[in-house]
Amino acid sequence: MRYKLIIEYDGTGILGWQRQLDGPSVQQYLEDILDKINGEHREIISAGRTDAGVHALKQVAHIDLNRTMEPWKIREAFNGNLLAQNAPVSVLEVEAADDKFHARFSARKRSYIYRILNRRAPSPVLKNKVWWVPVPLNVSLMRKGAEHLIGHHDFTSFRAAACQAKSPLKTLDKIEITPDGEEIVFYVEARSFLHHQVRNIVGTLKMVGDGHLSPNDVKKILDAKDRKTAGPTAPACGLYLYNVEY
Amino acid sequence: MRYKLIIEYDGTGILGWQRQLDGPSVQQYLEDILDKINGEHREIISAGRTDAGVHALKQVAHIDLNRTMEPWKIREAFNGNLLAQNAPVSVLEVEAADDKFHARFSARKRSYIYRILNRRAPSPVLKNKVWWVPVPLNVSLMRKGAEHLIGHHDFTSFRAAACQAKSPLKTLDKIEITPDGEEIVFYVEARSFLHHQVRNIVGTLKMVGDGHLSPNDVKKILDAKDRKTAGPTAPACGLYLYNVEY
Repeated sequence: MRYKLIIEYDGTGILGWQRQLDGPSVQQYLEDILDKINGEHREIISAGRTDAGVHALKQVAHIDLNRTMEPWKIREAFNGNLLAQNAPVSVLEVEAADDKFHARFSARKRSYIYRILNRRAPSPVLKNKVWWVPVPLNVSLMRKGAEHLIGHHDFTSFRAAACQAKSPLKTLDKIEITPDGEEIVFYVEARSFLHHQVRNIVGTLKMVGDGHLSPNDVKKILDAKDRKTAGPTAPACGLYLYNVEY
Repeated sequence: MRYKLIIEYDGTGILGWQRQLDGPSVQQYLEDILDKINGEHREIISAGRTDAGVHALKQVAHIDLNRTMEPWKIREAFNGNLLAQNAPVSVLEVEAADDKFHARFSARKRSYIYRILNRRAPSPVLKNKVWWVPVPLNVSLMRKGAEHLIGHHDFTSFRAAACQAKSPLKTLDKIEITPDGEEIVFYVEARSFLHHQVRNIVGTLKMVGDGHLSPNDVKKILDAKDRKTAGPTAPACGLYLYNVEY
């Protein structure tokens, strides 16, 4: 029986989604519990990997169980074990899924938010939850710069060297930049993203916001198809996988 | 020269505002830096103490410096040292204050918020920032119960055994209970509070919300003037000193 899981996690102090030899990962926490439930090893498949330090509010994954279980019992089995281990992972919902449902390949849309705290003083309460940028950022300039990125483009300039995607061509459906108190929140939406694409976009738009680049420079950077022309990768701690739609 | 400081801190892993022998406190972090600036020990006075685990968004304190300094330089001196120590404390604002200004005695109003996360699954992202209550809480019943607490009362039933206040009589100006997504946020306002008063009120209203008490039981508990009749003290991690007015 296949089940769809909706998962929240805090990326601080773990090595991201994917299992690693040198430290804890979301995959490892969840598969260790899945092994107990199934009595044999089975892989958990997520909509996408996230890097060390990146959070998820609604990551989606699927699992296959040897037997039928009530979805709420699966959720409680995971959360009971996760709490006992003090793991920074929580299973929000479980539902029975069709055999054809695949958390990665069936996904039609993925969205992320990126939170910048834009004020002079750092915030202990928001530590590891936002990127603290003490210099004032101009939201309307960043919005103008972002407009150049909407649509179907070659995103080579915003792609990590380690990116394993076959093609740098992606369609970015939406970038919304919204002030929220002392924060500036980026919301981005696409069918799929290149490795580091969101963080490289935010790192570049931040340079537009603080005046180091003009909005039109974003178009030049996109056209250059050269990672070295864009801004630095924004820190992982501000990024949240927000939702996955099927 | 006297200066007024506005301070944010995360109470997780520290022993609260007041200096203790057995671990870090906000007072100790700030006074150690103040000693460097002044070259001799001077006490920092806050609007009020907060317990271990309790956060502050806008705690207010005053300090006396041997010399005049530009307020922004004082803020940067504190924050540079606090960041270097990885202290969970940040100085948001500094302004020159009158010699008659006293952070504790001049305060006219203090407000706190208390955040409950009310959903079945725990939240790793909000860990130590909210009280996770998995059973559904009825907000309108809690509001009805809270109405009995507004005004001038003997709050003995909501007072910690260790409370050092001379009198249990306090005037509670406001309790607002507001759903916010999956959270329920309590906002309380008074000239001053007894020790644990807010957490004991929230712990009792939570029992109204989950049906263990009726709204009218809150009146009976208040009238009993007996701590044993009220609910348990809500956890420190959900409480934030929100603001102090002068």
